[in-house]
Amino acid sequence: MKYYERTIKTEPIYEGSIFDIEKLTVELPNGKITYRDVIRNPGASVIVPITEDGHVILVKQYRKPIEEVSLEIPAGKLDHGEEPIQCAARELKEETGYAAKKLTKIMTLHPAPAFADEILHIFIATGLSLGEACPDEDEFIHSGKYKLDEVINMIQDGTIKDAKTVAGILFVARMLETGDLKL
Amino acid sequence: MKYYERTIKTEPIYEGSIFDIEKLTVELPNGKITYRDVIRNPGASVIVPITEDGHVILVKQYRKPIEEVSLEIPAGKLDHGEEPIQCAARELKEETGYAAKKLTKIMTLHPAPAFADEILHIFIATGLSLGEACPDEDEFIHSGKYKLDEVINMIQDGTIKDAKTVAGILFVARMLETGDLKL
Repeated sequence: MKYYERTIKTEPIYEGSIFDIEKLTVELPNGKITYRDVIRNPGASVIVPITEDGHVILVKQYRKPIEEVSLEIPAGKLDHGEEPIQCAARELKEETGYAAKKLTKIMTLHPAPAFADEILHIFIATGLSLGEACPDEDEFIHSGKYKLDEVINMIQDGTIKDAKTVAGILFVARMLETGDLKL
Repeated sequence: MKYYERTIKTEPIYEGSIFDIEKLTVELPNGKITYRDVIRNPGASVIVPITEDGHVILVKQYRKPIEEVSLEIPAGKLDHGEEPIQCAARELKEETGYAAKKLTKIMTLHPAPAFADEILHIFIATGLSLGEACPDEDEFIHSGKYKLDEVINMIQDGTIKDAKTVAGILFVARMLETGDLKL
């Protein structure tokens, strides 16, 4: 089966501070012409910070699009030219105050491949030591330490609804259960 | 800690076929004024279709934003006024040809709460019987049956990168392991 969609034309629609939008004219496998609106952004690094005694560091912040306070694993956008692992270390420090001896890439995720090109680089952070958090001046974010079992319960009871957090936590829980990760 | 961001002004930026964009002027907890670009769409239903012998039905399609063929659990946008469970039954049938005796809501996910209001309603579909798939004329999508263990392997080895698929499959795998779901 053929799937590929050839781009015929790219039209910039919007340039924002967080994302840009392009309208693509594409040719479908059956030769028909259609349009795809695509959100473009630089991607982000996402961190599952886990302590030796099986606690996870989560951050709480107001997410305006969903009008809710959301409990999530730490994450932040890649700066221009920044390597994902550098971004992970920087965002972990900024949002939680923790530094990690070891950052291990475990997964790449596309949060919304139907309409956004965003790519998330997911890392486990281990060997954690606590310093001072330093969020951006206008970033209202609060970090806390939770037992992994408690976080899994919050996923199961619907308290945690952020897709990257559900995916990242369940992935790491499985690594611990299978012995692929040892604390 | 205060988190809430009050909306001062809402400005429509773009109306597309898949999503609209609004620029919100908001007041931060410290009284400062800033802007939030928000993607608005009607949300979607997502289905984890699982057979009595432990197979999962996945769909393969070209995702233009990431320029890749992506292997995912079936999903589709809510039609205007449609209930999520109706949408789940409709999309399952359209994309895979399967009808489900039982659709059980297991989770709500926000794929990108930093910039999109999208909400995903995740269902398990059981009691599956195969009919004829009926995708939209210009939807190039192909469904296949995979052992759950094989799907988990494809998550672990990076073949599957779609966030809702990783979250949905690992959630259901855990339900089976804990006995919360019996096939």
